[in-house]
Amino acid sequence: MKITSTNPATGDTRALEIDETTPQQVNDAARDARRALDALGARPLTWRVELLRAMADELVHDASQLVSIAGDETALPEARLRGELARTAFQLRFFADVVADGSFLAASIDEATESPMGPLPDLRRVRVPVGPVAVFGSSNFPFAFSVPGGDTASALAAGCPVLIKAHPAHPATSAATFAALSRAAARLGAPEHTLSLVFGLEAGGALVDAPEVAAVGFTGSPGVGQALWARANARPTPIAFYGELGSANPLVVTEGAANERAAEIGVGAAASFTLGAGQFCTKPGLLFVPAGSSGDELVRALAAELESSGSFTMLSSGIADNFRRGALGFEHEGHATLLYGGALGEGARTSARLFEVDATRFAAEAALRAECFGPAAIVVRYASSEQLRTALLAAEPALTFTAHLGDDDPDARWLLELGAERAGRVLVNGYPTGVGVSWSMHHGGPWPSTTAPWATSVGAAAIERWLRPVTFQSVPDELLPPALRSANPLSIPRRVNGRIELPS
Amino acid sequence: MKITSTNPATGDTRALEIDETTPQQVNDAARDARRALDALGARPLTWRVELLRAMADELVHDASQLVSIAGDETALPEARLRGELARTAFQLRFFADVVADGSFLAASIDEATESPMGPLPDLRRVRVPVGPVAVFGSSNFPFAFSVPGGDTASALAAGCPVLIKAHPAHPATSAATFAALSRAAARLGAPEHTLSLVFGLEAGGALVDAPEVAAVGFTGSPGVGQALWARANARPTPIAFYGELGSANPLVVTEGAANERAAEIGVGAAASFTLGAGQFCTKPGLLFVPAGSSGDELVRALAAELESSGSFTMLSSGIADNFRRGALGFEHEGHATLLYGGALGEGARTSARLFEVDATRFAAEAALRAECFGPAAIVVRYASSEQLRTALLAAEPALTFTAHLGDDDPDARWLLELGAERAGRVLVNGYPTGVGVSWSMHHGGPWPSTTAPWATSVGAAAIERWLRPVTFQSVPDELLPPALRSANPLSIPRRVNGRIELPS
Repeated sequence: MKITSTNPATGDTRALEIDETTPQQVNDAARDARRALDALGARPLTWRVELLRAMADELVHDASQLVSIAGDETALPEARLRGELARTAFQLRFFADVVADGSFLAASIDEATESPMGPLPDLRRVRVPVGPVAVFGSSNFPFAFSVPGGDTASALAAGCPVLIKAHPAHPATSAATFAALSRAAARLGAPEHTLSLVFGLEAGGALVDAPEVAAVGFTGSPGVGQALWARANARPTPIAFYGELGSANPLVVTEGAANERAAEIGVGAAASFTLGAGQFCTKPGLLFVPAGSSGDELVRALAAELESSGSFTMLSSGIADNFRRGALGFEHEGHATLLYGGALGEGARTSARLFEVDATRFAAEAALRAECFGPAAIVVRYASSEQLRTALLAAEPALTFTAHLGDDDPDARWLLELGAERAGRVLVNGYPTGVGVSWSMHHGGPWPSTTAPWATSVGAAAIERWLRPVTFQSVPDELLPPALRSANPLSIPRRVNGRIELPS
Repeated sequence: MKITSTNPATGDTRALEIDETTPQQVNDAARDARRALDALGARPLTWRVELLRAMADELVHDASQLVSIAGDETALPEARLRGELARTAFQLRFFADVVADGSFLAASIDEATESPMGPLPDLRRVRVPVGPVAVFGSSNFPFAFSVPGGDTASALAAGCPVLIKAHPAHPATSAATFAALSRAAARLGAPEHTLSLVFGLEAGGALVDAPEVAAVGFTGSPGVGQALWARANARPTPIAFYGELGSANPLVVTEGAANERAAEIGVGAAASFTLGAGQFCTKPGLLFVPAGSSGDELVRALAAELESSGSFTMLSSGIADNFRRGALGFEHEGHATLLYGGALGEGARTSARLFEVDATRFAAEAALRAECFGPAAIVVRYASSEQLRTALLAAEPALTFTAHLGDDDPDARWLLELGAERAGRVLVNGYPTGVGVSWSMHHGGPWPSTTAPWATSVGAAAIERWLRPVTFQSVPDELLPPALRSANPLSIPRRVNGRIELPS
């Protein structure tokens, strides 16, 4: 069957010259990828650095064409897509820097020694690529979390071949970005089958099952993510499944903050939860606002800002249907009060919705806790720190936790402690939409926001998901991986006899 | 019901003054441990260092008593138990050093900056304790992998309260070592419920289910380990389960090595696979030996060495029953030839058994691949490198892979590459029994030897299992965890703006 591409703005659907990948083809691709793993292992790290940079260059080269194709498939504005593509290229170059740095190998050498336990042999540890990695990109970032996105970049940086499942909401974008990456791979003489692209629902399942696939990176909905996580665990040989499943991210405004700058925060929160039609896994979906007059002022500013937000075209009519269902659920099952609601729309069109509920009801009402992907938020009004704490503990753990604090705020400390317990990123006086690609970023969080709370899908540490340590004991220098040879030919940071040694 | 303790050497069973822990008591203990987590978080790292050292001191103080109790319950010789206790104390002190070093926090600071993507906010990442940790110790190491063992030491080092399931094969040892650790905790003024001990099969299941338990460390058999792993995944909130399940560890003797030192390797291999009655998860259970005369000589030396090995008392009669079943299975289902076999024995008594099979049959015979816990090994005779490779790929992935190489060995490179793919530790010209506690040790391996191939249960990196990263964005300095404050008050290694900075 041919793969189809739909323009969410017009509803037009066209068949692409691409067939669904059969399970047999997926299995063959995984076997081919396994062979590429060995060939990649023979390349020096410097080559891997060049490959990632060449991929960035090819994306930049094709920028206008890619942005146009993605615009047709996602209805995302051109400026946003240009920015996202630039970020995607930046991310590939960033992972080239991570490879060049060499710390990701966690190389450690303990020379043979006497210990209180008797003689200890020469022990040297390094991380090795885990094997072929399957990548499932997201609907909402056709570049940065899709074919050329962070999972692909970090897996290639780790030395793993990548098998990518094209997202059904942007198959033409997937094919075009894959072509750009493949051109870079060919130019650099990469081993055959370093990259593969598969299409179709059945192919996705087959990818998780393929014996040669060693780990999965997934960005998407809790339903699909948890089902594939269970499938990865049900294999004869279970594999690691790194799913980033999104969350309803709490944003707390303290009494102090509301007293100081109610209107400013109201405007900022409205902009953040409607950014990109609210289609961010880090969207602040739960706004905890104090009861009383400064809280009222904040909510008025929030609602007023929405008046000018107009209507949105979501990524697909299916996603918009889910949004409408979720938003109606807040009202009808969760008994939240609608503060602002434009037309619910039809097809992929909709508009922002703002709800309000008091903290006691929120804590009691399970129907208000699910993420509603799209331009909706719930204002939770609290009358005391105790009410606030109870409501925050009733909310699901999340990717992010934001606190807007006043000067010398008495609630600051416990709020940040609670945030660090229940989220992967804790922000003060900011907005969680926007995830910087950097050494210190953690984009993850406790279950159910991810399936692996110790892992990140953004930032340098994302590479760690695709590696596994091996210790070499009493292995002659010339037979050791270069990272562990005594002369440090790769010039990387290592721990030697317990002390960190930096290359000069 | 009272817990019973059995002396495997005599078969005598006595009731201890200890009741089975009820599921309700387990739940209460987990809730108490959750409160201890917050209290532990308020203590400085220097206090944590002292706690671990005090625990080591208390174990050493009680050494004679502990060795005597453990000797009665395990039939392990006194010298071995004295050594194991010393190693256990060393391990606690080692994790004190790991805490003092501070690298385990993976602190990273990116100051606010302009990037090609626009302004990046101040981002600072640190690892935080994951929560209360459940520990299931092993039968074969009543100290080093039990109550005061590596899982407990590394979890406390990470700042996590620990709930320990006493092993049914050594409950009195569990209680006595727990008392020593608790004395240290009391002396240091540790928060109440930093440590808990539970008894009984049902309590073990309840521990994995308890909502406040955040991760599990397990050392034991594949059957129990995989069942508890599935249980951890079936929770409403699944948690990480780090199971070290053992393996039949391949040891390859190349043609070159056999030509050079057949007798020496034969003697060494016999000593390694019968050490501690073969009750090591790293026991070399599969000995790949070349066909031909030097291989014959090696096998003769191996068998001859066993003649003097006498009989063994295993850890329990149940473990000995499993050993007899496994050894008979190699003969009757796997059609291996018995080269040496003393009395199979009864109760906890048995003796060593050595089998032989050719590589082609081994590759075809699934019944020969399971670990047989105890003093048994299978010699696999190969006639070519191709036969050897096929047989090695038929064996299960393992904790260790050992190669005995000759001078300038033509098989060295591919053997070590295959070993690194299929095991967590690769040794040359040594024996895998004996796992050094050090910075560079990795004690883990691909499924089914562990449930989490990226994790180690021995060595400094074992602490990483009990931590999860959190990034703080634009958080004022005084509200940051000390590890992330600009002045570096903990004096720990950190990455700052992408560069590693070591404390002076």
